[in-house]
Amino acid sequence: MSAKAVVLLSGGLDSATALAIAKDQQFECYALSVDYGQRHAAELSAAKKIAQALDATAHKIIKIDLTAFGGSALTDTALEVPIAGENTDIPITYVPARNTIMLSLALAWAETLNCRDIFIGVNAVDYSGYPDCRPAFIQAFENMANLATKAAIEGKKLTIHTPVIDLSKQDIIQTGLELGVDYSLTVSCYQADEAGNACGVCDSCRIRRKGFTEAGIADMTRYQV
Amino acid sequence: MSAKAVVLLSGGLDSATALAIAKDQQFECYALSVDYGQRHAAELSAAKKIAQALDATAHKIIKIDLTAFGGSALTDTALEVPIAGENTDIPITYVPARNTIMLSLALAWAETLNCRDIFIGVNAVDYSGYPDCRPAFIQAFENMANLATKAAIEGKKLTIHTPVIDLSKQDIIQTGLELGVDYSLTVSCYQADEAGNACGVCDSCRIRRKGFTEAGIADMTRYQV
Repeated sequence: MSAKAVVLLSGGLDSATALAIAKDQQFECYALSVDYGQRHAAELSAAKKIAQALDATAHKIIKIDLTAFGGSALTDTALEVPIAGENTDIPITYVPARNTIMLSLALAWAETLNCRDIFIGVNAVDYSGYPDCRPAFIQAFENMANLATKAAIEGKKLTIHTPVIDLSKQDIIQTGLELGVDYSLTVSCYQADEAGNACGVCDSCRIRRKGFTEAGIADMTRYQV
Repeated sequence: MSAKAVVLLSGGLDSATALAIAKDQQFECYALSVDYGQRHAAELSAAKKIAQALDATAHKIIKIDLTAFGGSALTDTALEVPIAGENTDIPITYVPARNTIMLSLALAWAETLNCRDIFIGVNAVDYSGYPDCRPAFIQAFENMANLATKAAIEGKKLTIHTPVIDLSKQDIIQTGLELGVDYSLTVSCYQADEAGNACGVCDSCRIRRKGFTEAGIADMTRYQV
C-alpha cells in the first residue's frame, strides 16, 4: 500500500503540478482546497477538475470566511486588484496568513488520515514577494507541526513537501507537462470570470503568460480579452 | 493609545481568564472565537457574554467546518464523549490541529489589525494531555508566525502570550476572580446543553469542579444533574 499525502490544491498552475509530482512519487493523494472567500469560484471549480484528472483518492473543499478579517484585494471587494505589473513590495493581493491557515487545515486532515506527508505548491521564484512562500517559513511550519500533533508525540515525523519551490514558472510548466498535467484546466488569474476566463493583466496572469512564452509552449489559458 | 491584542476566546474558564489578564495588562482586546462544529452552541454563546462583560473592543466568531475531517468526539457525533475520568493517553476529545488552526486565524486577524500580540488560554497543568497545549508547541508557533507575515518581514516581532499555561485550575480561578471574571458565564463542559448547563461527568467538568473545590470557592457552574 502506498503512503498517503495531503496535497493543497488551489486550482492554479503550481499546485496542480505539485499534485502531479506527489502522484509520480507514488503517494495516494488527498487533495484539499480552501474556499476562503476568494473573488472567483472558477478557482475551486478548476481544483475539482484537476483532482479528478490527476486521480486524487479524495478531494475536500473546506469553507472558511477570511473576508471577515479583510485586508486583501483577493477577499475584500472594496480593494482593487492591481494591474500595474510586478514590483518589490508585498502586493495588496497577499491574503493575511493564508498559507499558515491552509497548512494548518492540511495538518488537521493529515492527522485524521494518519498521514505524514503534506504537499504545497509554493514557489519562491515567481512568487510576488509573499512572506509565506519562503523556504524559511515552510521549515518553521514543519518544526511547529512536529510538536502539534498526537503523531508527533509518538515520534512520527511529518514532512512538508514543496516540490516546485525553487523552479521557474517555465520549469514548473515543463515538469507538469511531462507528468501529464492539462494546464487548460488550471486558473491562475486573480479575477477570472465564472467560466474561468483570465483577465490577462493582473500580476498572476503576467507571470503565467511569461512562463508559457519562456517554455516555448502554446499558452492554453482562455483570456477574456 | 494602548496596544491591540487578539485574544482567543472559547467560552471556557481558561480563555476568559486570559482575556481578563490581557485587559489588566492594558491591551485593547479583540476577542476571536472559532465555530469549528463543536457539539454545543452554548460555548459560543458564553464567549459572546464574556467578551461583553470584559469590555472587548470587538468580538468575531469565525466559522470553519472541522467536522469535515472527523476524528474527535468533540466534532464527530458518531464518537462518544468519555466520562471515565482523566488518564495518561491523549483522549478522543482532542480535536486534530485545533490550536494550530485557531492560532493561525488569530494571526490573520492580528496582521490586518497591525497588532503584535496574541493571547491564548492554553494550560499545560490540567490539560488532558493535548500536544498543542505544551510550551514547546507555542514557542514553535511563535517562531513560525514571525516568518509568516508582512510585519515579520518588516521586523515587527509577534508574541504569543500564554498567561495561564503554568497555573493550576485553582490558581486560574483565583487570578480571574481578582480581575473580576464572572465564571458563571463560562462553559467548560464538552457536552453542555443549549442553555449552557454542564453534564458534570466529562473530563472537562471533572477538572473544573476540582479547581473550584481546591480554590475553596463556590462552584457557580450550572449542572444538568
